[in-house]
Amino acid sequence: MADRRRRPRVVIVFDLDGVVYRGDTPLPGAVSALAALSRAGHSLYFLTNNSTRSRAHYADKLTRMGIPTGAEQVVTSSYLTGRYLAERGGAGKRAYLVGEHGMAEELRLAGVEIAPDDGDEPVDYVVVGLDRNLTYARLARAHELIQRGARFIATNRDATYPVEDGREIPGGGAMVAALEHSTGVRAVTIGKPEPYPWRHILATTGVAPADALMVGDRPETDVLGAKRLGMRTALVLTGVTRGEAVANLPEEQRPDA
Amino acid sequence: MADRRRRPRVVIVFDLDGVVYRGDTPLPGAVSALAALSRAGHSLYFLTNNSTRSRAHYADKLTRMGIPTGAEQVVTSSYLTGRYLAERGGAGKRAYLVGEHGMAEELRLAGVEIAPDDGDEPVDYVVVGLDRNLTYARLARAHELIQRGARFIATNRDATYPVEDGREIPGGGAMVAALEHSTGVRAVTIGKPEPYPWRHILATTGVAPADALMVGDRPETDVLGAKRLGMRTALVLTGVTRGEAVANLPEEQRPDA
Repeated sequence: MADRRRRPRVVIVFDLDGVVYRGDTPLPGAVSALAALSRAGHSLYFLTNNSTRSRAHYADKLTRMGIPTGAEQVVTSSYLTGRYLAERGGAGKRAYLVGEHGMAEELRLAGVEIAPDDGDEPVDYVVVGLDRNLTYARLARAHELIQRGARFIATNRDATYPVEDGREIPGGGAMVAALEHSTGVRAVTIGKPEPYPWRHILATTGVAPADALMVGDRPETDVLGAKRLGMRTALVLTGVTRGEAVANLPEEQRPDA
Repeated sequence: MADRRRRPRVVIVFDLDGVVYRGDTPLPGAVSALAALSRAGHSLYFLTNNSTRSRAHYADKLTRMGIPTGAEQVVTSSYLTGRYLAERGGAGKRAYLVGEHGMAEELRLAGVEIAPDDGDEPVDYVVVGLDRNLTYARLARAHELIQRGARFIATNRDATYPVEDGREIPGGGAMVAALEHSTGVRAVTIGKPEPYPWRHILATTGVAPADALMVGDRPETDVLGAKRLGMRTALVLTGVTRGEAVANLPEEQRPDA
């Protein structure tokens, strides 16, 4: 029985869009598979680069789909950015955002103050993610603050953001690319495939990488990043990747399953 | 006297901001030097990557400063984009613009039709330059049209745009970088330091590169591009470059004077 008690807890991290659901519809089998994994005692986490929504939003959405989820199981790139800044003394400091309400909500929860669109008070960070209300004035303000020395943080570098009908719109990475080009400053990036998201989950849960599994649909982000940390990885074919493409993946993007 | 008659006409191409004027003020000596060069029979051209204003605007501005100039002496990146498209059968075709009024004016003069912000009619080109009224909706529309196959043309890749008090705001290149990141498509670039601007001036005037002089303030655009075509180059120190920096320039950016 000693072996059984020492068996490490298994953490399973799921990407959301293309893995658990597409848009507002759960993927076939997802609800029952997640329920079975939860009943078997595994710890489930949901990891998304989406910077526009709060953790509470995703917990509500999953719960309404029949996947009972607490906000503490949800890890978004804005939440991670808040954690990253808080760990480095960012509480009480001021950030100018190129992003949406969910980003502001997560940064406030981490103790970061949100800087206004004007004024001469010092600003410590410029945090950038998808902003579907982006204007040139906002871009120019972010540019000026980075030039004046604010640290430039990218919640994610996603090229696109999926919308209805399989269409895509420019993602948070497009806003980051614009400011990197104009300022000549390279952003610190928080989201997948950077290691911080998985490091944060491993540190929070206290499990070893070998006892954690990442389930995603993008080899170049979900598999690549988790594998580099020594986690096990599974690629689902319900998202952006088709079966015949798997054989041609470079070794570092090839999943265990 | 045969030698004299066969002496080729000399063309002198001036960058504008930082070379002829700064903002709305002529640089010291510029008005009298340009008048003397004109009296000596040289053909003067003014070449700017600025995509937001028409050639007529610059001719008026220079004339008001005491430098009598016709629109035909002014070469902007939007004008060049119109020429580039016209030379490739673009007259009568449709372009969606991320840019300002001056860009629309120059493209219309080249026979290109300007596409509206919505509608399902086919669009042949997406032309991008500085747009101080940029919105996310405009970026998303440009993204979608490029994804559907419209050719992606950058009037210029300038990182910044100088404004009053020595401040800078994000340039046309920032808009280009955002769309290149989101679409994964690399734009065809028209402006300096690409060769097209000088090729156009040389072809229009019929002079050999060795008989043309480029006068600019940026080694990495003004000198580099003109020198590659075999033109002579002069770097002025009234703009962004300081004297002590010239000795450290790589060979391909080192001016003749």
